[in-house]
Amino acid sequence: MSSRVLAAELSRHVGARVRVAGWVHRRRRLKSVTFVVLRDRSGFAQVVTSGAAPPEETVVEVRATVSANPRAPGGVELTSPVLETLSAPVSPPPFDLYRPVLPALPTILDHAPVALRHPLLRERFSLAAAAVRGFRSTLDALGFTETHTPKIVASATESGANVFGIDYFGRPAYLAQSPQFFKQALVGVFERVYEVGPVFRAEPHDTARHLAQYTSLDAELGFIEDHHDVMAVLREVLAGMAAETGGVTVPERIPEIHFAAALELVGADPREPDLAPAHERALSEWAVREHSSEFLFVTGYPMAKRPFYTHPDPARPGYSNSFDLLFRGLELVTGGQRLHRHEDYVAALGGDVSSYGDYLAAFAHGMPPHGGFAIGLERFLARLLGVANVREVTLFPRDLHRLSP
Amino acid sequence: MSSRVLAAELSRHVGARVRVAGWVHRRRRLKSVTFVVLRDRSGFAQVVTSGAAPPEETVVEVRATVSANPRAPGGVELTSPVLETLSAPVSPPPFDLYRPVLPALPTILDHAPVALRHPLLRERFSLAAAAVRGFRSTLDALGFTETHTPKIVASATESGANVFGIDYFGRPAYLAQSPQFFKQALVGVFERVYEVGPVFRAEPHDTARHLAQYTSLDAELGFIEDHHDVMAVLREVLAGMAAETGGVTVPERIPEIHFAAALELVGADPREPDLAPAHERALSEWAVREHSSEFLFVTGYPMAKRPFYTHPDPARPGYSNSFDLLFRGLELVTGGQRLHRHEDYVAALGGDVSSYGDYLAAFAHGMPPHGGFAIGLERFLARLLGVANVREVTLFPRDLHRLSP
Repeated sequence: MSSRVLAAELSRHVGARVRVAGWVHRRRRLKSVTFVVLRDRSGFAQVVTSGAAPPEETVVEVRATVSANPRAPGGVELTSPVLETLSAPVSPPPFDLYRPVLPALPTILDHAPVALRHPLLRERFSLAAAAVRGFRSTLDALGFTETHTPKIVASATESGANVFGIDYFGRPAYLAQSPQFFKQALVGVFERVYEVGPVFRAEPHDTARHLAQYTSLDAELGFIEDHHDVMAVLREVLAGMAAETGGVTVPERIPEIHFAAALELVGADPREPDLAPAHERALSEWAVREHSSEFLFVTGYPMAKRPFYTHPDPARPGYSNSFDLLFRGLELVTGGQRLHRHEDYVAALGGDVSSYGDYLAAFAHGMPPHGGFAIGLERFLARLLGVANVREVTLFPRDLHRLSP
Repeated sequence: MSSRVLAAELSRHVGARVRVAGWVHRRRRLKSVTFVVLRDRSGFAQVVTSGAAPPEETVVEVRATVSANPRAPGGVELTSPVLETLSAPVSPPPFDLYRPVLPALPTILDHAPVALRHPLLRERFSLAAAAVRGFRSTLDALGFTETHTPKIVASATESGANVFGIDYFGRPAYLAQSPQFFKQALVGVFERVYEVGPVFRAEPHDTARHLAQYTSLDAELGFIEDHHDVMAVLREVLAGMAAETGGVTVPERIPEIHFAAALELVGADPREPDLAPAHERALSEWAVREHSSEFLFVTGYPMAKRPFYTHPDPARPGYSNSFDLLFRGLELVTGGQRLHRHEDYVAALGGDVSSYGDYLAAFAHGMPPHGGFAIGLERFLARLLGVANVREVTLFPRDLHRLSP
């Protein structure tokens, strides 16, 4: 028998006898005929049969004739079919996968292995793959090297809180909250590195924005002047991601506002050390109104609210060479310039470097001025698609309550 | 000042004043001049100065004139330089990074953040990135979708042994040993999926082939006839990886030998359930001799030695539709056809499906015949480069003894 034809290719085979395969997406029995909508990875095909048809989610192989029918989806339908069942379901799906409206989120999450087959959900994760492809291809073209770093680490040194403990051959160890220390050390090796991988946060709160595991798109680059060089690379990365996903326009130059000016703009107390969610929303609206941009860089966050490795602003004491990128009202990316001199790390750590020995090793041997950023893939998708909860754009979410499926 | 020029681009700027930046790779003081070899991400540049030069691993910016010199590396050297130190080392590197011979492995691993700067080591990890690029681009072109699945799982169901336990918000959980169950469920969604990510094995033995974390290149595809369709995709993937890395030729058709014939060929007891390392070496030598191939598929391993989800060979009781791929004397890839019918899983698990509920959910709702494979990235590189220990091709290895750097 000839090789399998995908649903999306059928219009090129009008008049021919073909073999297709997929799932029975929907079965509609009328008086004299039954319509079977077949689903495969490329799309849908309508099969018209006068015989019996198996129930939804049955996996079938169909040998049939491709007939033109302007009223059928894609302009063709499959006639005179011979259906063979490859795999029969033992029970109906938890909800009708062919209905255009999704059920409530808990139903989706509880039944993810089947629910994800819904075309609306599947499409989200095709977009996730496209976004990551855009991230990588942009950085590959800019001379970055992809790396794979340890997810098991000896100490919880980056933030100290919200880490998962592991029994590592009888010794305590932790799941990495980010590849931060590794990507900085690797700037000393490759100058420009990126990593796409899981990061882990033992987030004890049940929020719409936090997961115990998410996919972090990390980049770090050396020989920068300051954080603006990092922001320029981030702009290229976002444009590369948007080129693959569609759904958003990244301006040639993303507008920028200093943290102090941002506080003033939203009418907040100038002594506030951070932006509240309402401030972020107001600033995003301002960027759309004043700069026609759905993205906004807020730069120069106070040193007090940034990690110890943040580079200060040499011109403005108390402020840092850091940034957040707001996208449609929420923080999407955090980044900035890092310290690069060994003595600056020793000072920043208050001289207590005992638990940072491995981290500081790279800085003891010459590190260029550098910086980087991390994009949360799920946050990007949630904002891009306008869904409220990051769980809606995570295949199998892990959180305070959910460890399966 | 003009923008930075990379070492590899200097020959296009002969006669011009340029700005370069990088590390002092080597400083050689002669009587009247000092040669500084500058290292950046693109290669090396020779700087000639009559003044002082900083020690190795100092990060410098150099403004200098590009002069043709046929005896210099790359045909050019930098003259009349003005050196500015961006970052000074606080101590010399643990070994001379400019010497062409590497120190012993423990020295490299203990000092990885600096040791990886050695050109021979850096090159290995550029090859790792190239291999992964080849893996992805091949599968993207074949209609596969990239996925990101949980690394924290509720039960240690796949093998039961050698799993790392986690304290998950006070509940027991485990680090995933592979994305096996997830990628199978996702065949129900996308038909063809792949994942590049960390997998975790609490390997209690100190061997040259095993790591506690490694990078697994996983693929899985539906609507196959049997394992030979999986092997055909794997052949394309290997060719795509080799096209990016060089160093090996993948034949148009990788030779194949059945497990039973392989035992006979190497003169082993026909009741042996598995191949010994000496057998694998002998078989690889045979494939080179008889088929001029450094790759060899061994197919049809006994069901008794394969995981419960392995599809049996319908024509040959006791044997399976599985394969290993041998590469230069060692197993590089394991794969095969999986069970796809719900009742076959229930039978394979002996009716005890209580701890497999989430896994079996996908199979209860129609799954196509499918199969897949997993390539260990570090094993591939070790074989490709002819290094004996996978730690030599892992940035920051994790094993029984090593949890840092």
